[in-house]
Amino acid sequence: MVNENKVGTYEFVAEPFHVDFTEKLTMGVLGNHLLNCAGFHAADRGFGIATLNENHYTWVLSRLAVEMNELPRAYEKFSIQTWVENVYRLFTDRNFAILNAEGKPIGYARSVWAMISMQTRKPADLLALHGGKITDYICTDVECPIDKPGRIKMEQPEQVGEHLAKYSDIDLNGHVNSIKYIEHILDLFPMEQFRDKTVRRFEVAYVAEGYYGDTLTFHREQKGENEYDIEVKKNNGEAVVRSKVIFK
Amino acid sequence: MVNENKVGTYEFVAEPFHVDFTEKLTMGVLGNHLLNCAGFHAADRGFGIATLNENHYTWVLSRLAVEMNELPRAYEKFSIQTWVENVYRLFTDRNFAILNAEGKPIGYARSVWAMISMQTRKPADLLALHGGKITDYICTDVECPIDKPGRIKMEQPEQVGEHLAKYSDIDLNGHVNSIKYIEHILDLFPMEQFRDKTVRRFEVAYVAEGYYGDTLTFHREQKGENEYDIEVKKNNGEAVVRSKVIFK
Repeated sequence: MVNENKVGTYEFVAEPFHVDFTEKLTMGVLGNHLLNCAGFHAADRGFGIATLNENHYTWVLSRLAVEMNELPRAYEKFSIQTWVENVYRLFTDRNFAILNAEGKPIGYARSVWAMISMQTRKPADLLALHGGKITDYICTDVECPIDKPGRIKMEQPEQVGEHLAKYSDIDLNGHVNSIKYIEHILDLFPMEQFRDKTVRRFEVAYVAEGYYGDTLTFHREQKGENEYDIEVKKNNGEAVVRSKVIFK
Repeated sequence: MVNENKVGTYEFVAEPFHVDFTEKLTMGVLGNHLLNCAGFHAADRGFGIATLNENHYTWVLSRLAVEMNELPRAYEKFSIQTWVENVYRLFTDRNFAILNAEGKPIGYARSVWAMISMQTRKPADLLALHGGKITDYICTDVECPIDKPGRIKMEQPEQVGEHLAKYSDIDLNGHVNSIKYIEHILDLFPMEQFRDKTVRRFEVAYVAEGYYGDTLTFHREQKGENEYDIEVKKNNGEAVVRSKVIFK
Protein backbone atom coordinates (compact mmCIF):
# COMPACT_ATOMS: atom_id res chain seq x y z
CA MET A 1 0.00 0.00 0.00
CA VAL A 2 1.28 3.39 -1.01
CA ASN A 3 0.13 5.00 2.24
CA GLU A 4 1.56 2.42 4.56
CA ASN A 5 4.31 4.67 5.79
CA LYS A 6 2.29 7.86 5.54
CA VAL A 7 -0.57 6.87 7.84
CA GLY A 8 0.25 5.91 11.44
CA THR A 9 -2.19 3.74 13.41
CA TYR A 10 -2.22 3.57 17.21
CA GLU A 11 -4.30 1.36 19.51
CA PHE A 12 -6.09 2.47 22.68
CA VAL A 13 -8.59 1.32 25.24
CA ALA A 14 -11.09 3.62 26.98
CA GLU A 15 -9.78 3.47 30.57
CA PRO A 16 -12.31 3.58 33.42
CA PHE A 17 -11.10 6.94 34.78
CA HIS A 18 -11.03 8.41 31.27
CA VAL A 19 -14.79 8.21 30.69
CA ASP A 20 -17.50 10.52 31.98
CA PHE A 21 -20.59 9.62 33.98
CA THR A 22 -22.29 8.39 30.79
CA GLU A 23 -19.38 5.93 30.40
CA LYS A 24 -18.17 7.65 27.20
CA LEU A 25 -14.58 8.73 26.61
CA THR A 26 -14.12 12.39 27.52
CA MET A 27 -13.19 14.93 24.86
CA GLY A 28 -10.11 15.94 26.90
CA VAL A 29 -8.73 12.41 26.97
CA LEU A 30 -9.46 11.99 23.26
CA GLY A 31 -7.63 15.26 22.59
CA ASN A 32 -4.65 13.98 24.57
CA HIS A 33 -4.58 10.76 22.54
CA LEU A 34 -4.75 12.74 19.26
CA LEU A 35 -1.81 14.92 20.27
CA ASN A 36 0.19 11.87 21.35
CA CYS A 37 -0.50 10.19 18.01
CA ALA A 38 0.72 13.33 16.22
CA GLY A 39 3.90 13.11 18.31
CA PHE A 40 4.47 9.39 17.69
CA HIS A 41 3.84 9.76 13.96
CA ALA A 42 6.22 12.72 13.60
CA ALA A 43 8.93 11.15 15.79
CA ASP A 44 8.87 7.90 13.80
CA ARG A 45 9.38 9.89 10.57
CA GLY A 46 12.22 12.13 11.72
CA PHE A 47 10.35 15.38 12.37
CA GLY A 48 9.33 14.79 15.97
CA ILE A 49 9.77 17.17 18.85
CA ALA A 50 12.99 15.49 20.10
CA THR A 51 14.71 16.02 16.74
CA LEU A 52 13.38 19.58 16.50
CA ASN A 53 14.46 20.41 20.05
CA GLU A 54 18.06 19.60 19.18
CA ASN A 55 17.83 22.46 16.73
CA HIS A 56 15.88 24.67 19.17
CA TYR A 57 12.58 24.38 17.34
CA THR A 58 9.33 22.95 18.61
CA TRP A 59 5.82 22.15 17.36
CA VAL A 60 2.95 24.38 18.49
CA LEU A 61 -0.67 23.33 18.12
CA SER A 62 -2.68 26.15 16.60
CA ARG A 63 -6.11 24.61 15.96
CA LEU A 64 -7.95 21.38 16.60
CA ALA A 65 -11.41 20.29 15.43
CA VAL A 66 -12.87 16.95 16.47
CA GLU A 67 -16.16 15.57 15.18
CA MET A 68 -17.54 12.35 16.61
CA ASN A 69 -20.55 10.28 15.57
CA GLU A 70 -20.08 8.12 18.62
CA LEU A 71 -17.52 7.88 21.39
CA PRO A 72 -15.70 4.81 22.72
CA ARG A 73 -17.32 3.50 25.91
CA ALA A 74 -15.54 2.35 29.07
CA TYR A 75 -13.22 -0.62 28.44
CA GLU A 76 -13.78 -0.55 24.66
CA LYS A 77 -10.82 -0.71 22.31
CA PHE A 78 -10.40 1.90 19.60
CA SER A 79 -7.66 3.13 17.31
CA ILE A 80 -6.50 6.44 15.89
CA GLN A 81 -5.02 6.95 12.43
CA THR A 82 -3.12 10.11 11.59
CA TRP A 83 -1.48 11.59 8.52
CA VAL A 84 -0.17 14.89 7.18
CA GLU A 85 -2.60 16.43 4.66
CA ASN A 86 -0.69 19.56 3.70
CA VAL A 87 2.49 21.44 4.45
CA TYR A 88 2.69 25.19 3.93
CA ARG A 89 5.57 27.48 4.76
CA LEU A 90 4.30 28.34 8.25
CA PHE A 91 1.62 25.72 8.94
CA THR A 92 0.93 22.06 8.45
CA ASP A 93 -2.47 20.32 8.43
CA ARG A 94 -2.61 16.96 10.19
CA ASN A 95 -5.76 14.83 10.06
CA PHE A 96 -7.04 11.94 12.17
CA ALA A 97 -9.62 9.17 11.92
CA ILE A 98 -10.94 7.51 15.08
CA LEU A 99 -11.98 3.88 14.53
CA ASN A 100 -14.00 1.62 16.81
CA ALA A 101 -12.95 -1.90 17.85
CA GLU A 102 -14.29 -3.24 14.53
CA GLY A 103 -12.21 -0.73 12.54
CA LYS A 104 -15.23 1.37 11.52
CA PRO A 105 -14.66 5.17 11.60
CA ILE A 106 -16.63 6.77 14.45
CA GLY A 107 -15.12 10.24 14.07
CA TYR A 108 -12.48 12.45 12.53
CA ALA A 109 -10.26 15.33 13.56
CA ARG A 110 -8.29 18.09 11.87
CA SER A 111 -5.36 19.98 13.38
CA VAL A 112 -3.14 22.85 12.34
CA TRP A 113 0.42 23.14 13.64
CA ALA A 114 3.22 25.67 13.41
CA MET A 115 6.91 25.19 14.14
CA ILE A 116 8.53 27.91 16.23
CA SER A 117 12.01 28.80 17.32
CA MET A 118 12.38 28.15 21.05
CA GLN A 119 14.69 31.16 21.28
CA THR A 120 12.70 33.82 19.44
CA ARG A 121 9.20 32.15 19.72
CA LYS A 122 8.81 33.15 16.06
CA PRO A 123 7.41 30.77 13.43
CA ALA A 124 9.93 28.91 11.31
CA ASP A 125 9.83 27.74 7.70
CA LEU A 126 8.41 24.21 7.59
CA LEU A 127 9.52 23.65 4.01
CA ALA A 128 13.12 24.14 5.12
CA LEU A 129 12.78 21.58 7.95
CA HIS A 130 15.30 18.79 7.33
CA GLY A 131 15.47 19.72 3.68
CA GLY A 132 11.70 19.53 3.22
CA LYS A 133 11.56 15.93 4.46
CA ILE A 134 8.12 16.44 6.01
CA THR A 135 6.64 16.97 2.52
CA ASP A 136 7.56 13.36 1.63
CA TYR A 137 4.79 12.29 3.99
CA ILE A 138 1.97 14.40 2.57
CA CYS A 139 -0.97 12.08 2.06
CA THR A 140 -3.82 13.42 -0.06
CA ASP A 141 -5.80 10.29 -0.84
CA VAL A 142 -7.18 9.56 2.63
CA GLU A 143 -10.52 11.18 3.44
CA CYS A 144 -11.23 13.42 6.38
CA PRO A 145 -14.91 14.23 5.81
CA ILE A 146 -15.35 17.01 8.39
CA ASP A 147 -15.18 20.79 8.07
CA LYS A 148 -11.91 22.60 8.67
CA PRO A 149 -11.71 24.61 11.90
CA GLY A 150 -13.51 27.91 11.25
CA ARG A 151 -13.17 31.43 12.52
CA ILE A 152 -14.88 31.93 15.88
CA LYS A 153 -16.38 35.38 16.26
CA MET A 154 -18.56 36.47 19.13
CA GLU A 155 -20.80 39.51 19.43
CA GLN A 156 -22.35 39.53 22.87
CA PRO A 157 -20.55 36.97 24.97
CA GLU A 158 -21.51 36.47 28.60
CA GLN A 159 -18.92 35.63 31.25
CA VAL A 160 -19.86 32.19 32.56
CA GLY A 161 -16.79 31.01 34.44
CA GLU A 162 -13.48 31.86 36.03
CA HIS A 163 -10.47 29.69 36.87
CA LEU A 164 -7.14 30.48 38.46
CA ALA A 165 -4.40 28.53 36.63
CA LYS A 166 -2.85 26.15 39.16
CA TYR A 167 0.02 23.63 39.33
CA SER A 168 -1.86 20.83 37.54
CA ASP A 169 -2.92 23.16 34.69
CA ILE A 170 0.69 23.74 33.63
CA ASP A 171 2.50 21.61 31.05
CA LEU A 172 6.16 20.80 30.50
CA ASN A 173 6.65 24.07 28.62
CA GLY A 174 5.36 26.11 31.57
CA HIS A 175 2.12 27.01 29.72
CA VAL A 176 -1.47 26.16 30.51
CA ASN A 177 -1.89 22.63 29.12
CA SER A 178 -3.86 22.48 25.82
CA ILE A 179 -5.89 19.56 27.17
CA LYS A 180 -6.86 21.33 30.40
CA TYR A 181 -8.53 24.10 28.39
CA ILE A 182 -10.79 21.44 26.84
CA GLU A 183 -11.80 20.22 30.33
CA HIS A 184 -12.39 23.73 31.66
CA ILE A 185 -14.51 24.64 28.62
CA LEU A 186 -16.74 21.56 28.94
CA ASP A 187 -17.05 22.26 32.68
CA LEU A 188 -18.95 25.43 31.75
CA PHE A 189 -21.94 23.24 30.87
CA PRO A 190 -24.20 21.63 33.46
CA MET A 191 -24.12 17.88 33.90
CA GLU A 192 -27.65 17.54 32.38
CA GLN A 193 -26.26 18.80 29.07
CA PHE A 194 -24.16 15.62 28.86
CA ARG A 195 -26.94 13.36 30.10
CA ASP A 196 -29.34 14.41 27.37
CA LYS A 197 -26.85 15.21 24.62
CA THR A 198 -23.35 14.38 23.49
CA VAL A 199 -20.58 16.55 22.03
CA ARG A 200 -20.73 16.14 18.25
CA ARG A 201 -18.05 18.69 17.33
CA PHE A 202 -15.41 20.43 19.43
CA GLU A 203 -13.18 23.14 17.96
CA VAL A 204 -10.38 24.95 19.70
CA ALA A 205 -7.98 27.66 18.51
CA TYR A 206 -4.93 28.35 20.67
CA VAL A 207 -4.33 32.08 20.29
CA ALA A 208 -1.85 32.93 23.07
CA GLU A 209 -0.18 31.25 26.04
CA GLY A 210 -1.62 31.15 29.56
CA TYR A 211 0.68 30.89 32.57
CA TYR A 212 0.61 29.78 36.22
CA GLY A 213 -1.34 32.29 38.32
CA ASP A 214 -3.30 33.71 35.39
CA THR A 215 -6.97 34.29 36.06
CA LEU A 216 -8.76 32.70 33.13
CA THR A 217 -12.28 33.96 32.41
CA PHE A 218 -14.68 32.10 30.14
CA HIS A 219 -17.05 34.03 27.89
CA ARG A 220 -19.81 32.20 26.04
CA GLU A 221 -22.35 33.00 23.35
CA GLN A 222 -25.06 30.61 22.19
CA LYS A 223 -25.12 30.43 18.38
CA GLY A 224 -27.88 27.91 17.80
CA GLU A 225 -29.96 25.38 19.69
CA ASN A 226 -26.93 23.15 20.22
CA GLU A 227 -24.03 25.43 19.29
CA TYR A 228 -21.89 27.55 21.62
CA ASP A 229 -18.85 29.76 21.03
CA ILE A 230 -16.45 30.30 23.92
CA GLU A 231 -13.57 32.70 24.40
CA VAL A 232 -11.04 32.33 27.21
CA LYS A 233 -9.26 35.49 28.30
CA LYS A 234 -6.36 35.83 30.71
CA ASN A 235 -6.38 38.47 33.45
CA ASN A 236 -9.42 40.10 31.83
CA GLY A 237 -7.45 41.15 28.78
CA GLU A 238 -5.93 39.13 25.97
CA ALA A 239 -7.79 36.17 24.44
CA VAL A 240 -5.84 32.90 24.89
CA VAL A 241 -8.28 30.36 23.47
CA ARG A 242 -11.40 30.37 21.29
CA SER A 243 -13.63 27.35 21.03
CA LYS A 244 -16.88 26.10 19.49
CA VAL A 245 -18.90 23.27 20.98
CA ILE A 246 -21.74 21.63 19.07
CA PHE A 247 -23.91 19.11 20.88
CA LYS A 248 -26.35 16.68 19.31
CA MET B 1 8.75 -18.86 38.77
CA VAL B 2 6.20 -19.37 41.47
CA ASN B 3 5.03 -15.74 41.31
CA GLU B 4 4.67 -15.56 37.57
CA ASN B 5 0.91 -15.64 37.65
CA LYS B 6 0.61 -13.74 40.91
CA VAL B 7 2.48 -10.60 39.87
CA GLY B 8 1.19 -8.63 36.87
CA THR B 9 3.57 -6.31 34.97
CA TYR B 10 2.35 -3.46 32.75
CA GLU B 11 4.39 -1.14 30.51
CA PHE B 12 3.92 2.63 30.20
CA VAL B 13 5.53 5.72 28.77
CA ALA B 14 5.40 9.16 30.41
CA GLU B 15 3.30 11.07 27.87
CA PRO B 16 4.09 14.75 27.25
CA PHE B 17 0.75 16.01 28.62
CA HIS B 18 1.06 13.73 31.65
CA VAL B 19 4.12 15.45 33.11
CA ASP B 20 4.28 18.68 35.08
CA PHE B 21 6.38 21.77 34.37
CA THR B 22 9.46 20.00 35.80
CA GLU B 23 8.90 17.28 33.15
CA LYS B 24 8.13 14.66 35.80
CA LEU B 25 5.07 12.39 35.69
CA THR B 26 2.26 13.85 37.80
CA MET B 27 1.01 12.01 40.88
CA GLY B 28 -2.54 12.03 39.44
CA VAL B 29 -1.49 10.26 36.25
CA LEU B 30 0.60 7.76 38.24
CA GLY B 31 -2.44 7.11 40.47
CA ASN B 32 -4.56 6.49 37.37
CA HIS B 33 -2.01 3.99 36.04
CA LEU B 34 -1.90 2.18 39.41
CA LEU B 35 -5.69 1.83 39.49
CA ASN B 36 -5.73 0.60 35.89
CA CYS B 37 -3.06 -2.01 36.72
CA ALA B 38 -5.18 -3.17 39.65
CA GLY B 39 -8.10 -3.52 37.23
CA PHE B 40 -6.12 -5.40 34.57
CA HIS B 41 -4.57 -7.75 37.15
CA ALA B 42 -7.93 -8.58 38.76
CA ALA B 43 -9.73 -8.96 35.41
CA ASP B 44 -7.08 -11.38 34.09
CA ARG B 45 -7.50 -13.53 37.21
CA GLY B 46 -11.28 -13.69 37.27
CA PHE B 47 -12.08 -11.18 40.01
CA GLY B 48 -12.24 -8.01 37.91
CA ILE B 49 -14.96 -5.44 37.98
CA ALA B 50 -16.75 -6.86 34.91
CA THR B 51 -17.15 -10.27 36.56
CA LEU B 52 -18.19 -8.65 39.85
CA ASN B 53 -20.70 -6.37 38.14
CA GLU B 54 -22.54 -9.38 36.75
CA ASN B 55 -23.22 -10.30 40.36
CA HIS B 56 -23.97 -6.69 41.35
CA TYR B 57 -20.74 -6.20 43.29
CA THR B 58 -17.96 -3.71 42.62
CA TRP B 59 -14.49 -2.83 43.94
CA VAL B 60 -14.12 0.35 45.97
CA LEU B 61 -10.71 1.91 46.64
CA SER B 62 -10.39 2.75 50.32
CA ARG B 63 -6.77 3.86 50.69
CA LEU B 64 -3.74 4.50 48.51
CA ALA B 65 -0.17 5.36 49.55
CA VAL B 66 2.50 6.05 46.95
CA GLU B 67 6.16 6.64 47.76
CA MET B 68 8.57 7.62 45.00
CA ASN B 69 12.34 8.01 45.06
CA GLU B 70 12.21 9.43 41.58
CA LEU B 71 9.52 9.95 38.96
CA PRO B 72 9.54 9.00 35.29
CA ARG B 73 10.39 11.99 33.09
CA ALA B 74 8.68 13.01 29.84
CA TYR B 75 8.94 10.31 27.13
CA GLU B 76 10.63 7.80 29.49
CA LYS B 77 9.38 4.24 29.64
CA PHE B 78 8.48 2.68 32.97
CA SER B 79 6.55 -0.32 34.23
CA ILE B 80 4.25 -1.13 37.13
CA GLN B 81 4.06 -4.47 38.91
CA THR B 82 1.12 -5.33 41.11
CA TRP B 83 0.12 -8.21 43.38
CA VAL B 84 -2.31 -9.05 46.17
CA GLU B 85 -0.57 -9.08 49.55
CA ASN B 86 -3.47 -10.05 51.80
CA VAL B 87 -7.16 -10.82 51.71
CA TYR B 88 -9.34 -10.26 54.77
CA ARG B 89 -13.07 -10.68 55.04
CA LEU B 90 -13.87 -7.05 54.20
CA PHE B 91 -10.61 -5.68 52.75
CA THR B 92 -7.76 -6.69 50.49
CA ASP B 93 -4.26 -5.20 50.37
CA ARG B 94 -2.80 -4.74 46.90
CA ASN B 95 0.81 -3.58 46.45
CA PHE B 96 2.70 -2.06 43.54
CA ALA B 97 6.31 -1.52 42.47
CA ILE B 98 7.14 1.18 39.91
CA LEU B 99 10.23 0.34 37.83
CA ASN B 100 12.23 2.63 35.56
CA ALA B 101 13.19 1.79 31.96
CA GLU B 102 16.11 -0.32 33.25
CA GLY B 103 13.81 -2.33 35.52
CA LYS B 104 15.12 -0.73 38.74
CA PRO B 105 12.45 0.07 41.35
CA ILE B 106 11.94 3.85 41.68
CA GLY B 107 8.93 3.66 43.98
CA TYR B 108 6.23 1.57 45.59
CA ALA B 109 2.57 1.86 46.43
CA ARG B 110 0.09 0.20 48.77
CA SER B 111 -3.67 0.14 48.35
CA VAL B 112 -6.63 -1.14 50.35
CA TRP B 113 -9.85 -2.16 48.61
CA ALA B 114 -13.30 -3.29 49.67
CA MET B 115 -15.95 -5.03 47.65
CA ILE B 116 -19.47 -3.64 47.97
CA SER B 117 -22.92 -4.61 46.83
CA MET B 118 -24.10 -2.19 44.17
CA GLN B 119 -27.63 -2.55 45.49
CA THR B 120 -27.11 -2.03 49.21
CA ARG B 121 -23.68 -0.20 49.00
CA LYS B 122 -22.71 -2.45 51.94
CA PRO B 123 -19.37 -4.28 52.09
CA ALA B 124 -19.37 -7.90 50.97
CA ASP B 125 -17.34 -10.91 52.13
CA LEU B 126 -14.18 -11.16 50.01
CA LEU B 127 -13.43 -14.68 51.20
CA ALA B 128 -16.73 -15.82 49.70
CA LEU B 129 -15.95 -14.21 46.31
CA HIS B 130 -15.93 -16.95 43.67
CA GLY B 131 -15.35 -19.56 46.35
CA GLY B 132 -12.32 -17.72 47.76
CA LYS B 133 -10.53 -17.73 44.39
CA ILE B 134 -8.87 -14.39 45.12
CA THR B 135 -6.89 -16.00 47.97
CA ASP B 136 -5.11 -18.25 45.42
CA TYR B 137 -3.27 -15.13 44.26
CA ILE B 138 -1.97 -13.94 47.62
CA CYS B 139 1.72 -13.26 47.15
CA THR B 140 3.75 -12.79 50.34
CA ASP B 141 7.32 -13.10 49.10
CA VAL B 142 7.53 -9.86 47.09
CA GLU B 143 8.73 -6.82 49.02
CA CYS B 144 6.90 -3.54 49.32
CA PRO B 145 9.31 -1.56 51.54
CA ILE B 146 7.09 1.43 52.35
CA ASP B 147 4.85 2.16 55.32
CA LYS B 148 1.19 1.20 55.22
CA PRO B 149 -1.26 4.08 54.88
CA GLY B 150 -1.67 5.61 58.35
CA ARG B 151 -4.46 7.34 60.18
CA ILE B 152 -4.67 11.04 59.30
CA LYS B 153 -5.76 13.17 62.22
CA MET B 154 -5.80 16.94 62.22
CA GLU B 155 -6.05 19.34 65.14
CA GLN B 156 -6.13 22.86 63.77
CA PRO B 157 -6.66 22.68 60.04
CA GLU B 158 -6.94 25.85 58.00
CA GLN B 159 -9.24 26.10 54.98
CA VAL B 160 -6.98 26.66 51.97
CA GLY B 161 -9.17 25.94 48.98
CA GLU B 162 -12.65 25.43 47.58
CA HIS B 163 -13.85 23.69 44.44
CA LEU B 164 -17.31 23.15 43.00
CA ALA B 165 -17.51 19.59 41.59
CA LYS B 166 -18.11 19.91 37.85
CA TYR B 167 -18.75 17.65 34.86
CA SER B 168 -15.12 16.61 34.39
CA ASP B 169 -14.74 15.72 38.08
CA ILE B 170 -17.35 12.97 37.86
CA ASP B 171 -16.50 9.34 37.05
CA LEU B 172 -18.51 6.55 35.46
CA ASN B 173 -20.15 5.76 38.82
CA GLY B 174 -21.43 9.33 39.17
CA HIS B 175 -18.96 10.08 41.99
CA VAL B 176 -16.10 12.57 42.16
CA ASN B 177 -13.23 10.76 40.42
CA SER B 178 -10.55 9.37 42.82
CA ILE B 179 -7.83 10.77 40.57
CA LYS B 180 -9.29 14.29 40.44
CA TYR B 181 -9.01 14.53 44.23
CA ILE B 182 -5.25 13.94 43.87
CA GLU B 183 -5.01 16.82 41.36
CA HIS B 184 -7.11 19.17 43.47
CA ILE B 185 -5.05 18.39 46.59
CA LEU B 186 -1.72 19.07 44.86
CA ASP B 187 -3.21 22.29 43.43
CA LEU B 188 -3.37 23.61 47.00
CA PHE B 189 0.40 24.09 46.87
CA PRO B 190 2.10 26.93 45.01
CA MET B 191 4.10 26.17 41.89
CA GLU B 192 7.39 26.99 43.70
CA GLN B 193 6.81 24.02 46.01
CA PHE B 194 7.22 21.72 42.99
CA ARG B 195 10.14 23.66 41.56
CA ASP B 196 12.22 23.28 44.70
CA LYS B 197 10.89 19.97 45.96
CA THR B 198 9.21 16.81 44.75
CA VAL B 199 6.43 14.69 46.24
CA ARG B 200 8.09 11.80 48.09
CA ARG B 201 4.95 10.26 49.58
CA PHE B 202 1.28 10.77 48.82
CA GLU B 203 -1.43 9.12 50.90
CA VAL B 204 -5.14 9.29 50.33
CA ALA B 205 -8.08 7.76 52.21
CA TYR B 206 -11.46 7.78 50.48
CA VAL B 207 -13.97 8.20 53.30
CA ALA B 208 -17.23 9.08 51.55
CA GLU B 209 -18.48 9.88 48.04
CA GLY B 210 -18.60 13.35 46.52
CA TYR B 211 -21.19 14.21 43.85
CA TYR B 212 -21.75 16.68 41.02
CA GLY B 213 -22.53 20.13 42.41
CA ASP B 214 -20.93 19.46 45.80
CA THR B 215 -18.83 22.31 47.14
CA LEU B 216 -15.57 20.70 48.19
CA THR B 217 -13.50 22.58 50.77
CA PHE B 218 -9.87 21.75 51.45
CA HIS B 219 -8.49 21.99 54.99
CA ARG B 220 -4.76 21.71 55.58
CA GLU B 221 -2.44 21.40 58.57
CA GLN B 222 1.35 21.43 58.33
CA LYS B 223 2.81 18.54 60.34
CA GLY B 224 6.52 19.01 59.71
CA GLU B 225 8.86 20.96 57.46
CA ASN B 226 7.78 18.93 54.42
CA GLU B 227 4.65 17.18 55.68
CA TYR B 228 1.03 18.27 55.24
CA ASP B 229 -2.27 16.67 56.19
CA ILE B 230 -5.34 17.58 54.15
CA GLU B 231 -9.02 16.93 54.70
CA VAL B 232 -11.62 17.46 51.98
CA LYS B 233 -15.17 18.13 53.16
CA LYS B 234 -18.32 18.34 51.09
CA ASN B 235 -20.83 21.14 51.56
CA ASN B 236 -19.01 22.19 54.74
CA GLY B 237 -19.99 19.03 56.55
CA GLU B 238 -18.93 15.43 56.04
CA ALA B 239 -15.30 14.53 55.29
CA VAL B 240 -14.96 12.81 51.90
CA VAL B 241 -11.18 12.44 51.60
CA ARG B 242 -8.16 12.63 53.91
CA SER B 243 -4.65 12.90 52.55
CA LYS B 244 -1.02 13.30 53.59
CA VAL B 245 1.60 14.81 51.32
CA ILE B 246 5.31 14.58 52.12
CA PHE B 247 7.77 16.53 49.96
CA LYS B 248 11.51 16.08 49.84
